[in-house]
Amino acid sequence: MDEKAILHSPESKYCFALNANTICLRLRISKEDFPDEIKVIYGGKYTFALERNSVKMKRSFEDRLYAYYTVTLTITDLRFVYVFEITNANTVYFYSEDGLTNKYDFELSYYNCFQYAYINECDLIQPVEWMKTATFYQIFIDRFNIGNVNKDKSYITLDWGELPTPKSFAGGDIKGITEKLYYLKGLGINALYLTPVFRSISNHKYDISDYYEIDEHFGNKSDLKELIDTAHRMGIKVVLDAVFNHCSDNLIQFQDVLKKGKQSEFYDWFIITNDSPLEYEMFGACAYMPKLNTSNPKVCKYLLDIATYWIKQFDIDGWRLDVSDEISHDFWRQFRKAVKETKSDCVLIGENWHDANIYLRGDQFDSIMNYAFTKACLDFYAFHEFTAQDMASKLNEILMRNTDPINDMMLNLLDTHDTHRFLTRVNGNQNQLMSALALTYFYPGAPCIYYGTENAMEGGYDPDCRRTFDWTLEKINNPVKSLIQKLTILKHENKFSSSAIKIYAKDNLLIVDRENFRLVINESDKDKPYMCNTMLFSNLFEKNVLKKNGFVVHLFYPEN
Amino acid sequence: MDEKAILHSPESKYCFALNANTICLRLRISKEDFPDEIKVIYGGKYTFALERNSVKMKRSFEDRLYAYYTVTLTITDLRFVYVFEITNANTVYFYSEDGLTNKYDFELSYYNCFQYAYINECDLIQPVEWMKTATFYQIFIDRFNIGNVNKDKSYITLDWGELPTPKSFAGGDIKGITEKLYYLKGLGINALYLTPVFRSISNHKYDISDYYEIDEHFGNKSDLKELIDTAHRMGIKVVLDAVFNHCSDNLIQFQDVLKKGKQSEFYDWFIITNDSPLEYEMFGACAYMPKLNTSNPKVCKYLLDIATYWIKQFDIDGWRLDVSDEISHDFWRQFRKAVKETKSDCVLIGENWHDANIYLRGDQFDSIMNYAFTKACLDFYAFHEFTAQDMASKLNEILMRNTDPINDMMLNLLDTHDTHRFLTRVNGNQNQLMSALALTYFYPGAPCIYYGTENAMEGGYDPDCRRTFDWTLEKINNPVKSLIQKLTILKHENKFSSSAIKIYAKDNLLIVDRENFRLVINESDKDKPYMCNTMLFSNLFEKNVLKKNGFVVHLFYPEN
Repeated sequence: MDEKAILHSPESKYCFALNANTICLRLRISKEDFPDEIKVIYGGKYTFALERNSVKMKRSFEDRLYAYYTVTLTITDLRFVYVFEITNANTVYFYSEDGLTNKYDFELSYYNCFQYAYINECDLIQPVEWMKTATFYQIFIDRFNIGNVNKDKSYITLDWGELPTPKSFAGGDIKGITEKLYYLKGLGINALYLTPVFRSISNHKYDISDYYEIDEHFGNKSDLKELIDTAHRMGIKVVLDAVFNHCSDNLIQFQDVLKKGKQSEFYDWFIITNDSPLEYEMFGACAYMPKLNTSNPKVCKYLLDIATYWIKQFDIDGWRLDVSDEISHDFWRQFRKAVKETKSDCVLIGENWHDANIYLRGDQFDSIMNYAFTKACLDFYAFHEFTAQDMASKLNEILMRNTDPINDMMLNLLDTHDTHRFLTRVNGNQNQLMSALALTYFYPGAPCIYYGTENAMEGGYDPDCRRTFDWTLEKINNPVKSLIQKLTILKHENKFSSSAIKIYAKDNLLIVDRENFRLVINESDKDKPYMCNTMLFSNLFEKNVLKKNGFVVHLFYPEN
Repeated sequence: MDEKAILHSPESKYCFALNANTICLRLRISKEDFPDEIKVIYGGKYTFALERNSVKMKRSFEDRLYAYYTVTLTITDLRFVYVFEITNANTVYFYSEDGLTNKYDFELSYYNCFQYAYINECDLIQPVEWMKTATFYQIFIDRFNIGNVNKDKSYITLDWGELPTPKSFAGGDIKGITEKLYYLKGLGINALYLTPVFRSISNHKYDISDYYEIDEHFGNKSDLKELIDTAHRMGIKVVLDAVFNHCSDNLIQFQDVLKKGKQSEFYDWFIITNDSPLEYEMFGACAYMPKLNTSNPKVCKYLLDIATYWIKQFDIDGWRLDVSDEISHDFWRQFRKAVKETKSDCVLIGENWHDANIYLRGDQFDSIMNYAFTKACLDFYAFHEFTAQDMASKLNEILMRNTDPINDMMLNLLDTHDTHRFLTRVNGNQNQLMSALALTYFYPGAPCIYYGTENAMEGGYDPDCRRTFDWTLEKINNPVKSLIQKLTILKHENKFSSSAIKIYAKDNLLIVDRENFRLVINESDKDKPYMCNTMLFSNLFEKNVLKKNGFVVHLFYPEN
C-alpha cells in the first residue's frame, strides 16, 4: 500500500450525510494499489468499543493518480464513528486519524477514530430537485431577439447579423425571449439563465446602477413578469444574474461618495483606499465598477433585500452569482439563508472558475458554473492534450471535488459569454461539438447550452462570442439541433444518480455508463488522433441499436 | 517526485490570510523527496498572464510521511493567484489545480491556477491575542476549595481528602476559588477554565436546569461577580463552561414537554423520536440529559441570549463549549457572531476530541481542547508507542491540521476531568510529568493545568480524577510546582510565533526550538526506553546553561 496516497477526511466530500439515516463515504488510495478488500468498520460514538458493524467498499472512481472506494450506509445512531480496515496481500491494516497502522485499539478510539459527530438536519446539503432534470439555455439578452414592442430603438448601434464590437447595442430584449419560449421548449429547454436585466448603460449590464429597475432597453417589470409567468406555465425555470461583487459608478450610493467624500453616509459601502485622489477597490481594473463592501452589514442588508425582492415579486427560480469568488463567505451564508427562506428551491449558482468545494458544503451555493468541465472538454477536443484515458481521469477527478448531491446540481457548459464559442475552439468541427454536447448531457449536473449553439453558431472571445442569433435558421433542422433535442428528452426522462456513474476508457473509447445508458465516444482513428466523430445520430437514442453486457449502447463511430 | 503525496488546497490550512496584506502558504510533499527548490509564482488575479513574482519556500515541518514547505508573503493586490514551481533533479515541474505538469500555460491560468480570490476582512481568522501568553488552570469546582461562606452544607457527602464516588459532593464553591486567586497567581496562572456553575443537581453540573442561575451549592451571582472582578484586577481571565448540546430533564421547557406532550410549545425544542412512550435524542445514553434541538431557531435564540447575558452582566472572558462537535455548524456560526459582537476577545474553545479544522476556519471556534496533543503525550510517555522521532512527527502533524493563528490559540492539556490524570498514566513518575509539562508550554497554544497537577496529584478515570485538592500542600514547594512557575514566566514573557517553531528529533532527543529557546527532551537511555527524565530543573531557565548554535539550550538529562 502506498500510504502517502491515502486520503480521507470526515465531514467533507469524503464523508457526507444525505439525510439523517444515510452516510456516504469515500476513501482515496493510489490507483496502482489493488487491495484484497477495503471495509469500513462503524458504529455509534458512545458504543464503538463494544459494538461495531462493517461493510465492504467498492472501487468506484479512478483519476490520473488515485482510486476512490465508496459506500453508502444506512445508520440508526446519528453519532457516527468509523475506521477503515484494509486487507492487502493478506495483511490487515487500519486507517484512522492516526494514519495506517497494523493494529487498532477500539478502547481508545475516542482519541483517533473518524467521526461524523452528529447529523444535524440544518447542516445537511438540501438538493434543489429540479436541477437533476434541467437543461439550461443561456441568453445574452441584447443579442437573442428583439420583441414585438414599441420602444425607442435609437440606442441600437448594430444591425442584426453584423459582427458585434465591445460597445454594440443590437436591441434584444425580454419580450423577445418570451416570444421565443415555444422555440426553446421545442429544443427541450426547461431552464433559462439570463445575463443581467437591471438598469445599466452597457450592453452586458454587469455594471448595474439600479437593482430595482429593469433596464429600459430590455423592457420593464411587466415584461419580466410576463416572461416568467409564461415560462412557468410551460415548465421552464428562470434564473437571473446577481451582480453583487460590484456595481456601476452610477449607483446613487457611489455617486453620493463621489460628491461628499468621507461625509457621505455611503462612504463605507465601498472599499476606499485613498481619499484624494479617490481610489477604491473595483472589479478587475474597471473604475466604473466599484466593489461593494460586503463586510459592511448595511451593504449586506441592501443586497439581501434585492435578492429576495425579485423572488417575492417575480417568482424567479434562481440566481447566478457573478464574480462570486471575490465576495465574502460570510455574505454568501447570509444570502443563502435569506433566499432559501423565501423560496426553498431557488437555485444558487456561483461563477467560480476554480475548485469551489469551500462554497459547496451546504451553507453557501448549490452549484457553480463548471468551468473545470469546460477546460477538460477543451483539453480533449480542442487542444489535443488529452487521450480518452486522460479525459476519463479528469472527469472523475472533477467529480471527486464535491459531494454527490452537489455534483447533481453542477451547471455544465462548453462555452459562455466569457469564453470563445466551443465550435470555434474545435475549428468548426460540428462532430466534435456534438460529441462534447452528448458528454455534457451524460455528466452529472445540468447542461447549459449557450444561445445559438443549436445552429452551430461560431464566435471567438468577447465580443465575438456575443453575436446576434440568426432567426432565419429557426425552422431549419440540423444535426446539432436534432442531437440537443434527443439528449434533452433522455435527460428529462431519467433522474440518474451521480453516485452510480462510471467513467472510464477502453483503448480509444471514452465510456460513460449511467444506469441503463452507455455513452461511447471514439477519441480517434489511429491517423486522426483526438477526432471525436458522431455519425449515427439518427439512431442514437433508439434503445436497441447495440446490446453489450446488458447495457443499451450508444456508439459514436469514427468518421470513416 | 512522489506526485501522489503532494497536497495543496487554497483557502484552507494550506493557504490562509493573516490580514489584507499577508498570505501564508504551505505545500505538502513526500518526506523522502528533497527537491532542489520549491518556489511559489504569484500575482494578481487579472494580471497573472502578464506580471508575476516568485519566492522560494522553506522546508519547515516534517511528520511521519510528509514534509511541508511554507512561505509568508506580503501582497498588494487582494486578489491573489499562484502556482508552484518545483525543481527536482534539474527538471522543472509546475503544480496547479491540474496537478504536477511539465509545462504551464499562464495565458489559460484562469482555468487552473490556485487562488485566494479576494481577501475579505470579515472572513479572516481574528486571533484572541491574550491566548498567546495564557496559562490556564482547570478547576472542577466541587473539589477545589470550600470558601469561607455561610451556606447550608447538608448536601456535602464527601469528607475532604476522601476518594470521591460518582455522586459525591465535597463542597467546593466559587468563593473558594476567589480565596485562592493569590495562590494561583503565585503559580503563574493567568486564565481559569471552570466546569459549569449553573443550576444543576449533579456534582459536575453538566446537566443544567437553569442557565440563568448559579447553582446554590457553588454560591450566587455576586460570588461569581466578585470572582471575576478580583481575577480581572489580578490579570486573570475567566472562562466558563457552556453546556448547550443538552440540558437537564429538569429544565422547565423539557418538564413542559413531559407534561403536555405534543401540545407543549416546547415540543420542538427537543428531538422527539417517539411520543408514547416518550423517546428523544439525548447526550450519550443519559435520559436525564435531553439534547437541545439547535435546528430550531427559537432554541438558538434562547442559547445565544444565555451566552451573551453572562458576558454582558459578568464580563466573562470566554466559553468552553461542551460536546461542541454534536451541535450544528449553523448554530456555532450564529453563536460566534453573537459572542464576538458582545466582546470581541471572548475566546471560544470547543470540546472536540478529533481533528476539528472544519470548526476552526474563522467562522466558528477560536480553539479546541487539544486532545490530539494529549494522546501524543500518552503515546510517548505512558504507552511507550512513540520514539522521539515518532513524537516529533506527530507533534508536527497536529500543527499541520490547522492554520498558525489557530495553533497559537489551542488549549493544550495533559489531562482533564474526563481522563485519567497524566501522572497516573505514567505510573507516578514525576520526571515524566515534568517533561510533558515542559513540552506543553513549548508547544504552540495555551497550556492548561488540571487543578492539583502542581502537587503531583494522582487519579484514575472519573470519578478518581476528580479528587479533592490537598491544601496542606499549599505552601510546600516541590519540583513540579517549581517547574510550572518557571515555565509560566517563560510563556508570559515571550510571544512566540508558531510559524517559526521547529520540532524534530536527533538520536533519542526530542527537540523544540522556539526563537531563542530550545527545549531538549531525552527520550531514554538505551536500557530504559521512553524514560523522559528531567534532572536539571533548578538550572532550567538560567539562560546560559549551555550555548549551542546560537541557541540557549535547556537540556533535560537522563537520570544517570
